[in-house]
Amino acid sequence: MSKKSVHEQLKYLFEPRTIAVIGATNNKLKWGYIVPANILAGGYQGELYPVNPHEEVILERKVYRSVKDIPVDIDLAVVTVPAPAVAGVIRECVEKDVKTCIVISGGFGETGDEGLRLEREVVRILENNDMRLVGPNTMGVYSASCSLHALMPPVRPVPGKIGFAAQSGNLGTQMLSLGKALGVGFSRFVCIGNEADLKCADYVEYFAQDPSTEVILLYIEGIKEARRFIDVVSKTTPNKPVVVMKAGKTEAGAKAARSHSAALAADEAIFEGVLKQTGMIEADTTEEMLDIAKAFAATPLPKGNRVGVLTWGGGWGVVTADALAKHGLELVELPEDTLKKLDELLPPYWSRGNPVDLVGTLDLSKHFACLEIIAKCPVVDAVITLGTMGATSSFQSFVLEGPAAEELSHIKPRVITGEFLKQLMATDEAYRNEVIRLMGETGKPIIAVSFPTSGAITPMLARQSEVVIYPSPERGAKTLAALYEYRKFLDRQRVSV
Amino acid sequence: MSKKSVHEQLKYLFEPRTIAVIGATNNKLKWGYIVPANILAGGYQGELYPVNPHEEVILERKVYRSVKDIPVDIDLAVVTVPAPAVAGVIRECVEKDVKTCIVISGGFGETGDEGLRLEREVVRILENNDMRLVGPNTMGVYSASCSLHALMPPVRPVPGKIGFAAQSGNLGTQMLSLGKALGVGFSRFVCIGNEADLKCADYVEYFAQDPSTEVILLYIEGIKEARRFIDVVSKTTPNKPVVVMKAGKTEAGAKAARSHSAALAADEAIFEGVLKQTGMIEADTTEEMLDIAKAFAATPLPKGNRVGVLTWGGGWGVVTADALAKHGLELVELPEDTLKKLDELLPPYWSRGNPVDLVGTLDLSKHFACLEIIAKCPVVDAVITLGTMGATSSFQSFVLEGPAAEELSHIKPRVITGEFLKQLMATDEAYRNEVIRLMGETGKPIIAVSFPTSGAITPMLARQSEVVIYPSPERGAKTLAALYEYRKFLDRQRVSV
Repeated sequence: MSKKSVHEQLKYLFEPRTIAVIGATNNKLKWGYIVPANILAGGYQGELYPVNPHEEVILERKVYRSVKDIPVDIDLAVVTVPAPAVAGVIRECVEKDVKTCIVISGGFGETGDEGLRLEREVVRILENNDMRLVGPNTMGVYSASCSLHALMPPVRPVPGKIGFAAQSGNLGTQMLSLGKALGVGFSRFVCIGNEADLKCADYVEYFAQDPSTEVILLYIEGIKEARRFIDVVSKTTPNKPVVVMKAGKTEAGAKAARSHSAALAADEAIFEGVLKQTGMIEADTTEEMLDIAKAFAATPLPKGNRVGVLTWGGGWGVVTADALAKHGLELVELPEDTLKKLDELLPPYWSRGNPVDLVGTLDLSKHFACLEIIAKCPVVDAVITLGTMGATSSFQSFVLEGPAAEELSHIKPRVITGEFLKQLMATDEAYRNEVIRLMGETGKPIIAVSFPTSGAITPMLARQSEVVIYPSPERGAKTLAALYEYRKFLDRQRVSV
Repeated sequence: MSKKSVHEQLKYLFEPRTIAVIGATNNKLKWGYIVPANILAGGYQGELYPVNPHEEVILERKVYRSVKDIPVDIDLAVVTVPAPAVAGVIRECVEKDVKTCIVISGGFGETGDEGLRLEREVVRILENNDMRLVGPNTMGVYSASCSLHALMPPVRPVPGKIGFAAQSGNLGTQMLSLGKALGVGFSRFVCIGNEADLKCADYVEYFAQDPSTEVILLYIEGIKEARRFIDVVSKTTPNKPVVVMKAGKTEAGAKAARSHSAALAADEAIFEGVLKQTGMIEADTTEEMLDIAKAFAATPLPKGNRVGVLTWGGGWGVVTADALAKHGLELVELPEDTLKKLDELLPPYWSRGNPVDLVGTLDLSKHFACLEIIAKCPVVDAVITLGTMGATSSFQSFVLEGPAAEELSHIKPRVITGEFLKQLMATDEAYRNEVIRLMGETGKPIIAVSFPTSGAITPMLARQSEVVIYPSPERGAKTLAALYEYRKFLDRQRVSV
């Protein structure tokens, strides 16, 4: 019998019209309660059917004794019964012609020989039919297009452009939460678990053709069916960037990975080769995963490595210059006519060079004007703007949140007024719009760095779907280097075609 | 005439009984208003005397025409008059026998030849007397012991153990603000400016003998009088750790530094030699400055490089294992008797190895017990504990702050109750106390990693004077490596003595 394409199959997983929860329960401390509660609280618009032979009503819904008793077709079954009972449940799903299932339950390949036996039994049941299975030992799936939160933790990601497959549920769902705090959205997420059936490559293949996914993010410990993975990714990268964090690259990490995901970790040198061959962009740390993915989702790619830097203070400019050099980016020399335009805006003693140091200029309209001059300078391929957006957002937060606010209201005359803060917020908003306008007009990426003066997520930092902001110049520069690396990969592809 | 020691001289700077503000004004957009307003709002307990020939009352205080008219001795003069007027003002300060002064004003060596001439003129005035000068071109000084905030930005640092000298005011004051958000305190801060008189080495010399300073933090672009700097630091590091961020290490960075601080940037290779010779601990990025300094201020030093890791989820454990290996730390094999003790607490399928994976265990008393077993294991020199403290703090914040809280209050029965959140907070607090107790009992550092699920500074994250928490395993591991590096330096010193 001819199987459907991965795309056709996984449409039922990421856009199910009907969901059965097998192992649903009223015990609030069990995943059989928490997962369907998350699905309902998350605003899923399709129908949800609890399955449990011993209950009547769960989450205000009629309970069925078996999935086979449900009177409608089921697109997705979420399975939370204990491992030894899973095979039986999966067999019923196949008989019912359920399209996809997510096996939340652990106790399979990751726990030893008996678990592996159970896992193989489940895989055998799937052999001659079209049903596809996520996991087992997975934290579940998120899908923005139908507001599906089939997840163990109560995460509510922001809808967005990033499709994310992670070989760790904890790490994956916590990235979703951080993304939410920063306004960085996801189109799909899957915790890939033990990959008994569906492999990482399958999710990449689905994301590759999924119109709602523009950037693909992977957290990988080990690759099953490496050949196919490389083929699928190689076909994907010319059209969509694939950002990957590879854990288990050291001997100690690989050993830890074996006991965690039971996946065979690839040798570091081999993985370097895979990166080169496939054009994936590597994130070296967990923080870089989101740093880089959010930039791909928000900004144009730089055409070259020449960077213009606008800074509010000299020290940060020096740090940025170092960071650019470290990552192979050029702090480009600005042409005389650009310097002359800047002369008209800056005090006579400005440094007349790149970084363009605003020397503490308080008049923010000058920041705007300088940003435009730098972004439109023909030798500049990308811009890093330091401190302006942060200066207002952060200033506001440390004045408003700290004891300073209280102190300052007691001394007369007041130093900081509410009016002043409102102005700051409006300026922040205007600067943000300016960055969006200039990226549109010039097709060049503009990366903002906001110094973490309070550490808090200000209203501006929480809206990074169109303008990305980094807490340090080093992280901004590293991200820009990643964008440029992908651009070079695309250029090589074009030449070789 | 014999000069006083740096210690005696700088006591007037960091613990002044009287301050004159020369260039004080009622114009709220000028530093001559903002700096004294900051001093008063910051709770300075000594006397403040505004000086301005054209005003009568500033900030509710009588104004003097000249510093010489003030009827009491002045320990510190804060100077905000324009650069060409500074020399005259400094001459009057010397005549009045003012002990120290901070020249906020810019327009000196950093701006070119004419500025350099003005700067040299000022230095000449100081030649045959005891008055010492900070700057010019400085954002000022903070001192916890007398609640002195002689700063341009309205920062209110937390009092603490870190003495900080920075060759960039922006960068320096923003570190103070971030420290405040994280509960990481400073004893003293100085923006060293152009170093016309007082050099970085002088501040290090003062911090070295200052009982309220236990950790020294430096941001350096270039070193003036390098020989003396090396001597002073070499004498300091056997007693107090010196953490340094060196900017301007690349050619591009050095060029930017020349136009910023007019300091000659050292060659990277030379600086590597200085690090080795002096035992300074390097921070590679601006984020690492506070990451490392806060750990030195809060935790014991590890006796060796063997690390025990406790994790709530496998993926983070793998990432941590990689990060430890990358920084030369050993994920130590736990002895059988330690594994047996853990067997009693963990499910039968736990991985029986290091990282100790809690496999999603929800019972937090088990986390406590596992932490104690690992911390007290004789082959473990240091502990990284992942997710537990974060799990509670962050869980709370993403449930409380996100729309999830609202959603969840509408579905019945409620998934998350206020009672549950209170429990989480209490557990967080208990875990924190447990970490403090175990560090005291074992003398081993315990580093917490809290995943940035919301990005917000939770109440727990805001109290890092005794327990340090990192947003990623990579940053925790890097910090632990820095602590171990200093321990090795101390061990070498001991051998060579």
